[in-house]
Amino acid sequence: MAMDDTARRAAERVSEERLWHRHMAMAEIGATPAGGVDRQALSAEDAAAQALLIDWGRPLGLKPFTDAIGNLFLRWEGRDPSLPPVLIGSHLDSQPTGGKFDGVFGVLAALETVEAMQEAGLTPLHGIEIVAWMNEEGSRFAPGMMGSEAFAGDRTLDQILPVRDLNGVSVEDALAQVRTVLTDLPILPLGRPVAACVEPHIEQAPVLEATGNVIGVVTGMQGKRTFRVTVTGEEGHAGTVPMAARRDALVAATAMVQAMQAEIAGVDDDIRFTIGRFVVMPNAPSVVAGEVVFSIDLRHPVDAVLRRTGDLLEPICEAARGPCAVKIERLVDVPPIEFSSQVRDLIRDAARAFDYPVLDLLSAAGHDARQINRLAPTGMIFVPCRGGISHNEAEWAEPAHLAAGARVLAAVTVALAKCE
Amino acid sequence: MAMDDTARRAAERVSEERLWHRHMAMAEIGATPAGGVDRQALSAEDAAAQALLIDWGRPLGLKPFTDAIGNLFLRWEGRDPSLPPVLIGSHLDSQPTGGKFDGVFGVLAALETVEAMQEAGLTPLHGIEIVAWMNEEGSRFAPGMMGSEAFAGDRTLDQILPVRDLNGVSVEDALAQVRTVLTDLPILPLGRPVAACVEPHIEQAPVLEATGNVIGVVTGMQGKRTFRVTVTGEEGHAGTVPMAARRDALVAATAMVQAMQAEIAGVDDDIRFTIGRFVVMPNAPSVVAGEVVFSIDLRHPVDAVLRRTGDLLEPICEAARGPCAVKIERLVDVPPIEFSSQVRDLIRDAARAFDYPVLDLLSAAGHDARQINRLAPTGMIFVPCRGGISHNEAEWAEPAHLAAGARVLAAVTVALAKCE
Repeated sequence: MAMDDTARRAAERVSEERLWHRHMAMAEIGATPAGGVDRQALSAEDAAAQALLIDWGRPLGLKPFTDAIGNLFLRWEGRDPSLPPVLIGSHLDSQPTGGKFDGVFGVLAALETVEAMQEAGLTPLHGIEIVAWMNEEGSRFAPGMMGSEAFAGDRTLDQILPVRDLNGVSVEDALAQVRTVLTDLPILPLGRPVAACVEPHIEQAPVLEATGNVIGVVTGMQGKRTFRVTVTGEEGHAGTVPMAARRDALVAATAMVQAMQAEIAGVDDDIRFTIGRFVVMPNAPSVVAGEVVFSIDLRHPVDAVLRRTGDLLEPICEAARGPCAVKIERLVDVPPIEFSSQVRDLIRDAARAFDYPVLDLLSAAGHDARQINRLAPTGMIFVPCRGGISHNEAEWAEPAHLAAGARVLAAVTVALAKCE
Repeated sequence: MAMDDTARRAAERVSEERLWHRHMAMAEIGATPAGGVDRQALSAEDAAAQALLIDWGRPLGLKPFTDAIGNLFLRWEGRDPSLPPVLIGSHLDSQPTGGKFDGVFGVLAALETVEAMQEAGLTPLHGIEIVAWMNEEGSRFAPGMMGSEAFAGDRTLDQILPVRDLNGVSVEDALAQVRTVLTDLPILPLGRPVAACVEPHIEQAPVLEATGNVIGVVTGMQGKRTFRVTVTGEEGHAGTVPMAARRDALVAATAMVQAMQAEIAGVDDDIRFTIGRFVVMPNAPSVVAGEVVFSIDLRHPVDAVLRRTGDLLEPICEAARGPCAVKIERLVDVPPIEFSSQVRDLIRDAARAFDYPVLDLLSAAGHDARQINRLAPTGMIFVPCRGGISHNEAEWAEPAHLAAGARVLAAVTVALAKCE
């Protein structure tokens, strides 16, 4: 599909220099000595970052408002204010030793998109809202994705507001504190109708870089099931207890690992099966292990496969436990999602129109777009980050790649918001 | 064999009460609040324990002396002073949170033996020496068995004297310090000729207690080979790295464990094969393991079997390493030993003569007797300890069992030293 002229005009006004400058300015809020960012959700730094975003939006006529969970929206009114908005953005909070790009890029690319559209003299039919979802990272208040989950109705305010950080401060209290800085913001309802949603983000994995691609069309997110397996045997002296009398938790646990690996790892090319944590007690060379606790992390983009393989784990462990006992706890259970094919096509077409090498890929990490995908056609644009490194002060993305992502966002938003 | 009258007369003068009283008195030196003992090698407490032993030997006419490594001997001269002595005893040092019986019992049973013989009006043809070997435990200065290894020539003074504790104090300096307390002890050469050696000890394992036996005839010690295996793969994200592209150190290491277990565990009833320590890096649920380091502890009483099975481990690990690298380091390599059949027969016969239930068994732990076994006919007498618990402040042995062990030692020593 050829790019229409309107989209091209908007995209061509995207400024790599302005976008980069704003990244660097935002990175000063919560800057760490090692060059990273500590800007955890609902902190003073988070509030300062939101205030800066509001300031940047003011000359563009963007109207800031919030909702009961503290998501921040900057609205550019559309030609028909009765239509639901197109949401574009990501989040401004970071890990305690986070980088300059995770989350921030999506929000600043959205701002750049609106500014470019205005410079190109365009007006949208749908309102366009730049969004910064509250507490994506979950490092201060766990688990994360609070803003988008509250917006999409996955969790209620009653579940979220009492959550406390390590200092005993609740989300409710921290939110009230932020509102002493961001005063007089209108509070709109959660779960308003949405026309479409696009979230740009750094990839946080090395695939784009390794394959020489600049734009990733995120096809969806894998489903994920995680488990904790506790194998209980009996401690014993390595020199005395006869082999036949042993209940060696390490022998049983390693048998389980091998049996699961044989059964699961080859299911298909998309399966991801990982035992990353494996803790032995008492873990002494001359003591037969009395207990092993290990993790299972299983992921697949197709729900039926995720169900079927996940349900195999318990019987496999039971069959391999030998004289030991085994207990399997189910922890996370998140089904896979697939993003809107309409939005994916728009992203891919825009990337091709600008000659950016483009790759369809799954997102390994979770993002706010997961929640909004159930409310409206949604998509994600990935750009490379160096070495796939993220959640790390060394996180880095190239200015040209960030600008490419913003240009694609601009073109996609022109189409979704029906700009003229 | 019936017990001869001389042996019976000596054994009958063994006093359960006196022996118990001395255990309790010795346990006050380095007593811990939890009821254990902290009397590490060459400490002030160790010196005080040696001084108390010397004091107890004085009224019996026992002559104390030492050697270049600080072993303590109390000699009861024989009718023919030119004959090599019979050594009986064990050690007085303890673990930092040790018990009242480990080591001490052997030394006090030896003192009880001499006192009982004297009360019975006997005299030995061979001199009898009560011995307290220096630093059996190895907790302050590692590795242990310093006294018996220096005596038997396994290690030289040049190797031992420079060894330092955690405070930087060398064995040489600590030994000099002890000699400021135990002044004027004659220093005899290391490696003097020995006629025979018997070491009584608590079992430190639950076999005697579990089988209702009171005396253990130690047939020998298993040989032991230990290894450290390092499996190196590549860290990766559990959600992104395809299974086929992984170099998962945990998958490789568990395959090695299972392959070795299949090959080694069923070799025969005497094999002991243990992987007790297994450390995964970075040990995070969502990260493919980059490295696993695990221990192998292999024991067998027959050297040929120990060699053959130990030599299998490296090729098995190599065959199971998959796309990972594996490095195997050989750590301990101690051949099995068998104690003198003459001494074993004497112990078994004495136990039977007193109607003590008796069992032949291997020692899982190492003891000073291992070293002396190469110099002269040597044996060990085990008595039960509660629950097999040792190296622990809760270590406990019954007064009647300690006395039974001392009676057997007295009877055996009468025969070995040719008492009349």
